[in-house]
Amino acid sequence: MEQPDLDVSVIDTRLAAAKDASRRLARASTAEKDAALEQVAVLLAERSAEIIEANALDLEAGRTAGLGSGLLDRLTLDERRVAALSDAVREVIGLTDPVGDTVSGRSLPNGVRIDQIRVPLGVIGAIYEARPNVTIDIAVLALKSGNAVVLRGGTAAEQTNRVLLRVLRDALDAAGLPADAVQTVDDFGRAGARHLMQARDYVDVLIPRGSAGLIRAVVDEAKVPVIETGAGVVHMFLDESAREDWAVDLVHNAKTQRPSVCNALETLLVHVDAAERLLPPVLARLEASGVTVHGDDRVRAIRPEAQPVTDEDWATEHMSLDISVGVVDSLDDAMAHIRRYSTKHTESIVTNDLGNAERFLNEVDAAAVMVNASTRFTDGAEFGFGAEVGISTQKLHARGPMGLPELTSTKWIVRGAGHVRG
Amino acid sequence: MEQPDLDVSVIDTRLAAAKDASRRLARASTAEKDAALEQVAVLLAERSAEIIEANALDLEAGRTAGLGSGLLDRLTLDERRVAALSDAVREVIGLTDPVGDTVSGRSLPNGVRIDQIRVPLGVIGAIYEARPNVTIDIAVLALKSGNAVVLRGGTAAEQTNRVLLRVLRDALDAAGLPADAVQTVDDFGRAGARHLMQARDYVDVLIPRGSAGLIRAVVDEAKVPVIETGAGVVHMFLDESAREDWAVDLVHNAKTQRPSVCNALETLLVHVDAAERLLPPVLARLEASGVTVHGDDRVRAIRPEAQPVTDEDWATEHMSLDISVGVVDSLDDAMAHIRRYSTKHTESIVTNDLGNAERFLNEVDAAAVMVNASTRFTDGAEFGFGAEVGISTQKLHARGPMGLPELTSTKWIVRGAGHVRG
Repeated sequence: MEQPDLDVSVIDTRLAAAKDASRRLARASTAEKDAALEQVAVLLAERSAEIIEANALDLEAGRTAGLGSGLLDRLTLDERRVAALSDAVREVIGLTDPVGDTVSGRSLPNGVRIDQIRVPLGVIGAIYEARPNVTIDIAVLALKSGNAVVLRGGTAAEQTNRVLLRVLRDALDAAGLPADAVQTVDDFGRAGARHLMQARDYVDVLIPRGSAGLIRAVVDEAKVPVIETGAGVVHMFLDESAREDWAVDLVHNAKTQRPSVCNALETLLVHVDAAERLLPPVLARLEASGVTVHGDDRVRAIRPEAQPVTDEDWATEHMSLDISVGVVDSLDDAMAHIRRYSTKHTESIVTNDLGNAERFLNEVDAAAVMVNASTRFTDGAEFGFGAEVGISTQKLHARGPMGLPELTSTKWIVRGAGHVRG
Repeated sequence: MEQPDLDVSVIDTRLAAAKDASRRLARASTAEKDAALEQVAVLLAERSAEIIEANALDLEAGRTAGLGSGLLDRLTLDERRVAALSDAVREVIGLTDPVGDTVSGRSLPNGVRIDQIRVPLGVIGAIYEARPNVTIDIAVLALKSGNAVVLRGGTAAEQTNRVLLRVLRDALDAAGLPADAVQTVDDFGRAGARHLMQARDYVDVLIPRGSAGLIRAVVDEAKVPVIETGAGVVHMFLDESAREDWAVDLVHNAKTQRPSVCNALETLLVHVDAAERLLPPVLARLEASGVTVHGDDRVRAIRPEAQPVTDEDWATEHMSLDISVGVVDSLDDAMAHIRRYSTKHTESIVTNDLGNAERFLNEVDAAAVMVNASTRFTDGAEFGFGAEVGISTQKLHARGPMGLPELTSTKWIVRGAGHVRG
């Protein structure tokens, strides 16, 4: 955890090396890139013991520093998890390489031919926290799409990430691609992260992954463009006409199937005319799975054992078995509540009313809007992307689950035969 | 030019009104939006005298402030230019509305249906300088694509823009759409512009249009995501195998057809083995059109009357009848020069060598890369987009000429029938 004085020239040397390497990666064939990824999978398996040993040092430091059990769990790599990482790399090998795809193309009236082709972004800066699996995950997705990557994985996983970095660089080297396509600024602490966020000459995009606080900090400090993969204060609205069986199943699945992820349900809104019919079975099912209900006055009139909900609860991504529940007077009131508290990740309605379904889908502003489906479906794997870089909650470049194409840009190729503009 | 103390709450009220209005615009049908644009065209014609009168005040203030003739020309609106503005609005009416387009869609294996649909970005902040035609231009493109817009057009065109703002707002009102979809922060001076750039709660994207300095300032100060429409230090490389007639025509067209725009040629590089063959006819044709040649030593050995080129010249977007010319030893040297000085707008090669053409197209990193075509083709109208929001020189969201689809985002519509995730 030593944090030396920041030597900007050393960081810039690394970033420049990443930029250089990115040009080679951009020209690499899919076969070359896949060979490097296969090496990553092989080396992860071969060096499993070394990785777990380094991880033990991080875990020990984490325990000493008093990290919570959730964080320690995310930090942990054991034999099974390293093997899973290796398997995940092989899954990325199986994905379609987007580089070189023609997005659009035509001949202009004068005979000039224009084609819009997918090209790598260049250098991706990945900023994340204490999850060493993300090191492999993001680096492998970046390399498959022809990008170089600069990693900032935080001090809590420093020892583990150092070994994983070596795995990635050795794999590139073994496959005849430049090791410099994977870099770290972890040894420069926060100052290094800050420098990475400002390095517009070298870094094409920043992808922060982690807590809302981390993402906000990156957005605030960055001069390099950011793809926000944001938090999810996810709502479900039970309309007057909602089927009881669907309401019970959908709320239960969205809340409990995996409560610690961004597409898990946080707030349930119920139409006043359906509250007496739907709340008792819906809340009973949740409580049977250990969910703590935080309800407004009208909810507690029906379900007195619920905790009172606070203003802060409405704005909170619990990521735990807690749910905020409110009764609203109309679809418009439900949408107004969502507008106020939504993080624009995933919003859903349960209804049998076609007009209300269409209004909700059209008028609610979020990366994903759903009718009669669990919010847990907002996911790259579920959407059929094969792998997921994250879920973008911004509107530029990418919105919703991001796959490999979202790690590319395009360029226009223009072919003439001495054509001039008249 | 009065610049009152900044009352943030007044600006925020306007931005919040724009955000509210953007929701109505997002739901507006193409017919509703086109009706508003038709009103803009009508009111521009009806109020032509009023617009020109206000413009005369700006011009007078500009002359007093010592603005150059180029700036004064861009600031000027006369009867002919107002009529042309009105015609341009009607052309936008004729464009296809991208909102609601399905970008992709499929049924998941479990029967859940997902569709990715184009939606407006929301609120666009437009920051530009002293060109009142941009006020109409950007507002009309924003409205056609279902967005609200907040304008910051600079003090030099303040009087003109005030009248044009009224035209836009009255047109919306006449068409039954909210006038608040068009706002200005011009009456708050630089502090207002700064506030606009930071207003992440209200503004979805900033589009700066103007000088390199303006764009850099926006990138530096903005917290809201920016689409950079950058300067063009545009290169053309005459390879050893370049045809003389094409070289002469392409260089001449790229440099002289409209020297003040971003896709005009700034730097010519010539392969050493083609210099004696190509430079005399190419430079003679340029000089005959009044172009001043700034050459390196090897150019001046062939063409002694050329000015010496400076390091600064290589990095300069002249926007005038000046050209920097250098001799290089190889394709690699040409690409290294381009890498160093390119603003990643448009780069071109003139060659008859297939291998070199492919290497140039693949390896040069720019929004548009060309072989045997004039760089003047990098243009929304030439590309068949009908209208152009600007030419993006960044890699995220949009790259190259931007049309209406680039003023949209997408959202995922998910339709289930009680589907839960297993």
